Amino acid sequence: MTAIRVALLGSGVVGSAVAKRLVDEADDLAARAGAPLEVVGVAVRDTGKDRSATGLAPELFTTDAEALVQRADIVVELMGGIEPARSLLRKAIEHGASVVTANKLLLGEDGPALYEQAEAAGVDLSYEAAVAGAIPLIRPLRESLAGDHVTRVMGIVNGTTNYILDKMDRTGAALADVLAEAQELGYAEADPTADVEGHDAQAKAAILASLAFHTRVVTSQVHCEGIMGITAEDIQAARRIGLVVKLLAIAERVRDDSAGDALSVRVHPVLVPRSHPLAAVHEAFNAVFVETELAGDLMFYGRGAGGDPTASAVLGDLVQAARNRVAGGHGPGESAYADLPVLPIGRARTCYFVRLDVLDVPGVLARVTGLFGQHGVSIESMRQGVRRSEDGLATLHLVTHAAQESALQRVMDEVQSLDDVRTIASVLRVEGA
Amino acid sequence: MTAIRVALLGSGVVGSAVAKRLVDEADDLAARAGAPLEVVGVAVRDTGKDRSATGLAPELFTTDAEALVQRADIVVELMGGIEPARSLLRKAIEHGASVVTANKLLLGEDGPALYEQAEAAGVDLSYEAAVAGAIPLIRPLRESLAGDHVTRVMGIVNGTTNYILDKMDRTGAALADVLAEAQELGYAEADPTADVEGHDAQAKAAILASLAFHTRVVTSQVHCEGIMGITAEDIQAARRIGLVVKLLAIAERVRDDSAGDALSVRVHPVLVPRSHPLAAVHEAFNAVFVETELAGDLMFYGRGAGGDPTASAVLGDLVQAARNRVAGGHGPGESAYADLPVLPIGRARTCYFVRLDVLDVPGVLARVTGLFGQHGVSIESMRQGVRRSEDGLATLHLVTHAAQESALQRVMDEVQSLDDVRTIASVLRVEGA
Repeated sequence: MTAIRVALLGSGVVGSAVAKRLVDEADDLAARAGAPLEVVGVAVRDTGKDRSATGLAPELFTTDAEALVQRADIVVELMGGIEPARSLLRKAIEHGASVVTANKLLLGEDGPALYEQAEAAGVDLSYEAAVAGAIPLIRPLRESLAGDHVTRVMGIVNGTTNYILDKMDRTGAALADVLAEAQELGYAEADPTADVEGHDAQAKAAILASLAFHTRVVTSQVHCEGIMGITAEDIQAARRIGLVVKLLAIAERVRDDSAGDALSVRVHPVLVPRSHPLAAVHEAFNAVFVETELAGDLMFYGRGAGGDPTASAVLGDLVQAARNRVAGGHGPGESAYADLPVLPIGRARTCYFVRLDVLDVPGVLARVTGLFGQHGVSIESMRQGVRRSEDGLATLHLVTHAAQESALQRVMDEVQSLDDVRTIASVLRVEGA
Repeated sequence: MTAIRVALLGSGVVGSAVAKRLVDEADDLAARAGAPLEVVGVAVRDTGKDRSATGLAPELFTTDAEALVQRADIVVELMGGIEPARSLLRKAIEHGASVVTANKLLLGEDGPALYEQAEAAGVDLSYEAAVAGAIPLIRPLRESLAGDHVTRVMGIVNGTTNYILDKMDRTGAALADVLAEAQELGYAEADPTADVEGHDAQAKAAILASLAFHTRVVTSQVHCEGIMGITAEDIQAARRIGLVVKLLAIAERVRDDSAGDALSVRVHPVLVPRSHPLAAVHEAFNAVFVETELAGDLMFYGRGAGGDPTASAVLGDLVQAARNRVAGGHGPGESAYADLPVLPIGRARTCYFVRLDVLDVPGVLARVTGLFGQHGVSIESMRQGVRRSEDGLATLHLVTHAAQESALQRVMDEVQSLDDVRTIASVLRVEGA
């Protein structure tokens, strides 16, 4: 049986875990793939480091990634970042290799071009590890649901922000304190920007939307808001009405008045009911909730990051790509036949939870609710707190029915300028109710 | 583009939903499959019925299933039962057709022989709908986790029993009352035996074990206990210590003293902690919790039954089988290379929750716990209730550490014969703690 030649690009935490497994479990992996998987090289920046823990011979480590990708049947890219990852994957595909990647940044920015190149070349491009780590998600969406229509995907796809929000919810602590603790524990990076500003989830939202809706969606089309504005008061207020704050990547098919069938793809904090399956996702776990026409509601839950979980996803793709090569074919590629327009955030429709600090004077309720009515935003429920002795203000809580984002924005602009309204304490979207 | 010829066997709830979708969504399905899917016939028992709701021409309905399977590229079997389903699938594969089936009974009893025949013939045999309905599970286990090692699968794979146990847990009602109500609502069949005795879950456990552990496991090797013995008192007692009763299909890889690496595959009521993700699966939903070496804990959640959800799974398999034929290949088959022995139930290891009614006399605790100690069953916690005025008895609750089933059985035999012990009120297994 001819061995399948595997090249690894990158030997960090995930790369080392993949390499070690390829050595330790060679027999099992060969039985599953239908042929031995032979590591022909590992591209690294520095060949001087001791990498004996992987079990691979030292001469397999090379700095010449470009030469390496030309002598492999399957190239596994675990370098991250746009370049040189993109050029190397392009070159690998040109040479007829199948590619496996965990690179969400690259796929979010330039996935569609790569999918197209792979499809034209008749090779596999697999990326299970790029979204929600170890959770089998790409293959279920692409294959298991191929006979159904996905209507909406809502996912907790960033473990760091879920850890922070979950901790805030359980302890009542402020975001800054929980973030500092998460950094100490290694749940958040020293520079947490990509996580807390939502950029990591933004790239994943683009990848999920492309796949679920057979449409090319890139990261820049995804509206993105992070969690830095979430306060302990937001979480307390939500808790009182049975809601919990989660950072969600949302992609949904909508019927738009002017664009017709279209997509809304966005990342932002969301209030979900405590009874919703996503509310039960704690700590740094990930979960993706998928709504479809036939299957109804599905959820996929597991670890979104970490060396071993990510290696599991990479190895699954690798074995599958090897099986396809043994069988002389390749798996299904991406399709973009639906080609739906992506709406700007102003045309998204959702419900809102609004907290206002208002003067406790006669008529304030009528003036505030009047503005909602004028812009066609219907109010589902409202509650006014008692007048606070310290500032003479009262807090007004409103939950709206689904409304267009732009309409809600207009309401907020006018509410802001009412004399009776001191502050808009917060505006949060509500989903899954 | 040559159309892929599809034959449907059976036109019940699922068959009609599949047929209707093939007509209504023909363009979308063709775009996804890479070729049109043409229904060349539907085998039914009675061609006289009005089936115009499917949108298929009346002349496509036939009673000659045997002739039909010989002129199809893909045969979709939705008849259920062992025969004639098995002979028809065998004939279809002989003629080079790929097959899609939702038939858990057949696969549980004779799956390994069918997988082997399909593999030898180079065709696809797909059965996503056979376990946990719409939940993508077969493909993730077979493909996404191909580079990992599954260590344990624990699934709520029967919606009827989950509905009953969930309702008992929420209302405190007795099983008989909840079952009667479930029958009225259509959640349980008029003859609920297959569900409540665990046979439905037993077949699914065999299918899951085969797939997860690369070993041939058939239904008759799966130890099976149903839920009919579960009382409102069991549920109340469990609730008091933070546990909830679920009927689980469990398949796990274990290290056995005499057999070495082996499998324990079983279906029985289980107490799981309320904090476990499976505890949050309510009503008739299904969920499968998978533990692996690299990926850690995963869970797949969704609807386990119903026409549309099952049709979603069948159509996903159908599109995938069509894609493979368009590409000129077939997907990965089953493998049984690991060939692990399946242990009898006596050699399973788990924790136990034991409730005894004992005479409230000095020394009873010592005599009872002494028996556990003699057989090497270690006690994790114990609680004695107050003496009841009506019968002078007290309830003793014990939770053990993991012990072998046969050892626990020996303890129970001897406990039973103690003069101070009036009744063994219940013995339930505890998992996921």
